[in-house]
Amino acid sequence: MKLRFFNMWLIFFLIIFSILPIAQVQAKEHAAKNVIFMIPDGFSTSYATNYRLYKGKEAVWDSMLVGMHRTYSANSPVTDSAAAATAMATGFKTDNGMISMSPDGKKLKTILEAAKEAGKGTGLVATSTITYATPAAFAAHVPSRKQESEIAVQYMDNEVDVILGGGRKYFNSILERGKEKGYEIVTNKMELSNVQTPQKLLGLFAGEGMVPELDRHMTSEPSLDEMTKVALRILKQNKKGFFLMVEGSQIDWAGHDNDAAWAMKDIEAFEKAVATALDFAKKDKNTLVVIAGDHDNGGMSVGAYDKYDAKLDVLRNVKSSGRYMEMQLDKNRRNAKEIMKKYAGIDLTKEEINTIEQADKPVKAINRIVSERALIGWTTSQHTGVDIPVYAYGPGSQIFRGLQENTELPKLMARVMNIKFP
Amino acid sequence: MKLRFFNMWLIFFLIIFSILPIAQVQAKEHAAKNVIFMIPDGFSTSYATNYRLYKGKEAVWDSMLVGMHRTYSANSPVTDSAAAATAMATGFKTDNGMISMSPDGKKLKTILEAAKEAGKGTGLVATSTITYATPAAFAAHVPSRKQESEIAVQYMDNEVDVILGGGRKYFNSILERGKEKGYEIVTNKMELSNVQTPQKLLGLFAGEGMVPELDRHMTSEPSLDEMTKVALRILKQNKKGFFLMVEGSQIDWAGHDNDAAWAMKDIEAFEKAVATALDFAKKDKNTLVVIAGDHDNGGMSVGAYDKYDAKLDVLRNVKSSGRYMEMQLDKNRRNAKEIMKKYAGIDLTKEEINTIEQADKPVKAINRIVSERALIGWTTSQHTGVDIPVYAYGPGSQIFRGLQENTELPKLMARVMNIKFP
Repeated sequence: MKLRFFNMWLIFFLIIFSILPIAQVQAKEHAAKNVIFMIPDGFSTSYATNYRLYKGKEAVWDSMLVGMHRTYSANSPVTDSAAAATAMATGFKTDNGMISMSPDGKKLKTILEAAKEAGKGTGLVATSTITYATPAAFAAHVPSRKQESEIAVQYMDNEVDVILGGGRKYFNSILERGKEKGYEIVTNKMELSNVQTPQKLLGLFAGEGMVPELDRHMTSEPSLDEMTKVALRILKQNKKGFFLMVEGSQIDWAGHDNDAAWAMKDIEAFEKAVATALDFAKKDKNTLVVIAGDHDNGGMSVGAYDKYDAKLDVLRNVKSSGRYMEMQLDKNRRNAKEIMKKYAGIDLTKEEINTIEQADKPVKAINRIVSERALIGWTTSQHTGVDIPVYAYGPGSQIFRGLQENTELPKLMARVMNIKFP
Repeated sequence: MKLRFFNMWLIFFLIIFSILPIAQVQAKEHAAKNVIFMIPDGFSTSYATNYRLYKGKEAVWDSMLVGMHRTYSANSPVTDSAAAATAMATGFKTDNGMISMSPDGKKLKTILEAAKEAGKGTGLVATSTITYATPAAFAAHVPSRKQESEIAVQYMDNEVDVILGGGRKYFNSILERGKEKGYEIVTNKMELSNVQTPQKLLGLFAGEGMVPELDRHMTSEPSLDEMTKVALRILKQNKKGFFLMVEGSQIDWAGHDNDAAWAMKDIEAFEKAVATALDFAKKDKNTLVVIAGDHDNGGMSVGAYDKYDAKLDVLRNVKSSGRYMEMQLDKNRRNAKEIMKKYAGIDLTKEEINTIEQADKPVKAINRIVSERALIGWTTSQHTGVDIPVYAYGPGSQIFRGLQENTELPKLMARVMNIKFP
């Protein structure tokens, strides 16, 4: 009798232990309290490969590759950042230019709003105006991305806990309202570094967009990484967790300019913020980090001009954005040679000097010369429609595997956080 | 006593059943008797996205995306097909131009040779000369990819069971030797279709490379799919399994020409061969199918020329390769308008007519015009160094996940086939 009793227990435990591993795997795959969604705007596989050559070794995300996603919008194979961010924030495709509204004008709930409803903290960090298309789609609903003042108002109404980026001009008229809502307000790197742990933080570090990382040393703006660190410090106070979106906005702007050095330097700045997010996630063990560009920009290639090579080391000598170099040209651009030597480390040929002197837009000529030296090609100064790599780390990261629609990303995040969405 | 006995059995079965699922998963992940390695030469993410738009729906490989691989060679960030195929066949990087030899001239064992040593059947199928760089690296060792006659000799010495493609001129002097070795020899589509199940098959369907899929209807050449079907029928006779490499060679050649329509049509031909391989693998349940381009070609983009759109439908109207259209031009190219209307479905503008009439190389002008209409951009007429998507289906497919070195691919295949390599 005693033996029988013992056997029954043994059987019971064996059943439990044979079910347990399966249950554990499922729990691991699906549960994270926090999600950090990091968007390198305009970043495609070409940027990833070129950046690895620029850095000279693997980027922190290379080991996190889980798949790719499709970026087309409701009205074009080539999305803009508004429709892309709407898809990535709401799970619905919309027309280019629209911010978290359907093509016929219905508001679409965002993953940030769903996280808020579940009691989680929320944050938006970017180096563009913080009211620019990508962050906007996470916490505002307007028919046009141009309505940045309205987007600012909606951020306040939505009470996004942490708002850090450029675009002070869109908040000037509502700063008092912000204070009433309990926001601590900061406007430069120094003030940001003195922030403790307020409940709400509004950091507006430039009137319009912030500057390219290459030119930041001339300003009092904080880095994307510095903003990310403060955002995490504040948001982790929430015991129910948080949803934070961090955008490397200017990779995209560099793409529009075909400015390869600006792109690489802003990817480097973005990578530092990603490293911070990963450090946090590794310690916390309850945080999913997802990295996904929203679309390609420029049709950049790795090697070009019929050469079997790529010379990314050229870009490591570039110390300023093409825009900044253009501003340093004198009236007749007679100093093109000195400027390009000083800021790009390039000895111009006579032909190249001529090209800059004659160019309609000198910045285009400057960036073209730098790209030619680095053997980087471009097919457009706008976005392209190529599939974009998806990287993920932490609990739930496996469910992002394979080729996804961009609209799947927020749905999978909601599943990982176990919150109601949409 | 009886009850106790019963309980012991119950415990025994519970232990077995709790171990079994784990063992099954491991077995599933690692064991396949056959490997079909399908290489769309020159195919990158841009080709994948453009092809999906061209087709109007997902390609058969889209649901099989498992990761990407890095393609740089031993001496350049931008590989050629010889170094790329050497990496994918031997697990070692080498210098551009070299065929399965190390930069200092040592022979490197290939995955096909390792499969042969394990008693498996082996096959090479391509639409280039079958002695071209990609197939060559699987069954030959020469310092230069140009040594195609020597490569042909080594194929015979290696006794590759199935050899199907172009390049008859490199075999003319060794055909007798082939017959002595037991090869059945075929030279056109009809003969191929009459092949039963010989032990060895040598099919040489063109003197040099085969024709672009767009122009094949004017020849007696079989399709890549037809060759693949026969290869599988012969190789599956081997009870120890087989290793088959199938290359969609001309996607790359289309890239070199910046001929977007040729690229799309040869991807379509490649997709049919992939569908055949997948059908085989689905029924067989003991076959791993891996699809991976060896490098990008042309820096192709999805959308270009500052437009937020992509018009792949334009390419569906193109009925011939740019090379063929060029050959149809009369001496002064006065018939450019008719030719482009007839073969590309395009009404040329006066400016475009002029461009073709004045061009150094009319084929370049023709392909440029077609690409502009389709909003496809190019940055080079050579390869680029961007990471390339990897697709896999069948037992072991999971171990290809993530960002891999191209040199990992044959090692992982060997692991799946459980054979000694290198």
